[in-house]
Amino acid sequence: MPSLEHHDTIRAVAWDAGILRLLDQRRLPFIETYLQCRCADDVAVAIRDLAVRGAPAIGIAAAWGVVLAARRGETFAAAIATLRAARPTAVNLQWALDRMHTRVAEGADADMLEREAQAIQAEDLAANRRMGELGAALLAPGSGVLTHCNTGSLATAGFGTALGVIRAGFACGKIVHVYAGETRPWLQGARLTMWELQRDGIPATLIADSAAAHLMKTRSNTAGAVQWVIVGADRIAANGDTANKIGTCQLAICARHHGVKFMVVAPSSTCDASTPSGDRIEIELRDPDELLSMAGQRTVVSGAQAWNPVFDVTPHSLIDAIVTERGVIERPDAARLRAVLGA
Amino acid sequence: MPSLEHHDTIRAVAWDAGILRLLDQRRLPFIETYLQCRCADDVAVAIRDLAVRGAPAIGIAAAWGVVLAARRGETFAAAIATLRAARPTAVNLQWALDRMHTRVAEGADADMLEREAQAIQAEDLAANRRMGELGAALLAPGSGVLTHCNTGSLATAGFGTALGVIRAGFACGKIVHVYAGETRPWLQGARLTMWELQRDGIPATLIADSAAAHLMKTRSNTAGAVQWVIVGADRIAANGDTANKIGTCQLAICARHHGVKFMVVAPSSTCDASTPSGDRIEIELRDPDELLSMAGQRTVVSGAQAWNPVFDVTPHSLIDAIVTERGVIERPDAARLRAVLGA
Repeated sequence: MPSLEHHDTIRAVAWDAGILRLLDQRRLPFIETYLQCRCADDVAVAIRDLAVRGAPAIGIAAAWGVVLAARRGETFAAAIATLRAARPTAVNLQWALDRMHTRVAEGADADMLEREAQAIQAEDLAANRRMGELGAALLAPGSGVLTHCNTGSLATAGFGTALGVIRAGFACGKIVHVYAGETRPWLQGARLTMWELQRDGIPATLIADSAAAHLMKTRSNTAGAVQWVIVGADRIAANGDTANKIGTCQLAICARHHGVKFMVVAPSSTCDASTPSGDRIEIELRDPDELLSMAGQRTVVSGAQAWNPVFDVTPHSLIDAIVTERGVIERPDAARLRAVLGA
Repeated sequence: MPSLEHHDTIRAVAWDAGILRLLDQRRLPFIETYLQCRCADDVAVAIRDLAVRGAPAIGIAAAWGVVLAARRGETFAAAIATLRAARPTAVNLQWALDRMHTRVAEGADADMLEREAQAIQAEDLAANRRMGELGAALLAPGSGVLTHCNTGSLATAGFGTALGVIRAGFACGKIVHVYAGETRPWLQGARLTMWELQRDGIPATLIADSAAAHLMKTRSNTAGAVQWVIVGADRIAANGDTANKIGTCQLAICARHHGVKFMVVAPSSTCDASTPSGDRIEIELRDPDELLSMAGQRTVVSGAQAWNPVFDVTPHSLIDAIVTERGVIERPDAARLRAVLGA
């Protein structure tokens, strides 16, 4: 694979001589400032207040929170409980804290815990690099792609999941142009993905979420229009049904309609064998005010109602490939997922 | 049909003693203020700058612009050319100006032109009432519907096209709940449709545009979820392909996927027999800044590109019914359109 150095410059979570530095994502894309976390509480506050976001990045930050607790001689039980409570529904957060807790229970000292946190971070980065290679291999040279939300270096140890495939694909000439959906209501695509792509020198164009079908349809007339939609995942059921940011399912339906391929990129830890299918995944509803106001200003008539689901479920039948660090599952179903990921 | 008086209270275009008063839709839903247009240029600016919007309302406003030109002794050719250039895709604008131009060419004086503009406006309102009846007749009692953009009293002489069907459907008990897509980037659904529905006492819930597929999918679990998508049209080709606000095509694709019906409501003047199919319709691109900023604040990294098509084309094969004031065309194609609308 060609050099990635110019297309992979962002690290949102960095351990630096006993201090955890977190790129404050609330202030992007205009202000690049790092929070300096010196104790587990600092990390918990950063997670709770969304300075760090993205399931893998949250888990990694929490692991470093345990290291900070060890270095300062804090009580582990209290530190881990505080970190756990920062985002109670984030699965990776619980997973990373369980892993650190196991080391603590084994009597690990601060140096050993530091190595464990480093390992969690390094494994995530390595998984993303591997998914990048595997995903890029599916693309034809000269492709245009569409992505949704932010699945990049900001959301992970670095490189990203779907955005990692895009980085790898651009570096090796498979991808010539990236379209990013703005991703209402939080605008992760507009604010974060466009920032990452611009900073890493990857040609990108922002679209309204509802312009995706038109983009797919006009692909023969527009230089660099899309052959693939590439997205991440929050949870993948045993049959391949995929929960991801609201709007993902719509992209998959429109992609199939227009003959555009649809790729999900996620580490194997995202696959939940205990959930047989997508209709068993509960969809979180968030505050209607996210739709009723914009940039702090009310936009909708007073008294109006809004319905604000955060995720939707894309049926496996609409997914052409699920890319994990353990391998690619094409035309995913329960048997094919098991074959690649084990039981 | 039951009384509509409580569900039809809004008029956005009003001729008032030689002045055209236009409800300034850029300032809704919080400020209700009227622009006073005294010459054709005032009207052209109001159309171009989206103070008045919606294909029928634009056509009506432009007709009044010709009356203003007559009253002031302006050159008709220049006034009509200026008005024609204000919005490229809106066929009603050209249609209304052609109709006024014919009267001018026949030697009509200002009073005769005023009666012609009044006729265009009255005919539009009557057409909307008729479409409301015809469209509502297609619905089963107790239906939920999803609409997009704003097709209401604000977009027409009054009552609305798609929103007219919704007004009529609610008044007669066919519709129990309305969902409105916010309609990025200009938020006509969030700002205007939610305002109209609340003001006229029709129960409504706002959704992100990208939540539509999830709404359709969860219809069996959610009280008042959707059996029909009901939208307007900016131009309908001879074969039934329909240009409408960006995001409409996506809704049609998702509706078909989920077994939800899809209705287009537009006056027969929207049907353009000279355009054989949708691929011949030019799609207006607007300023990328509409996506790069929000509420006057830049949201996307400096130097970023955006692609901002205003309309898309829904293939006739995805449309279950086109409702016009001359009749309903189910499963539209060129022959069925001709049968209802003539050659």
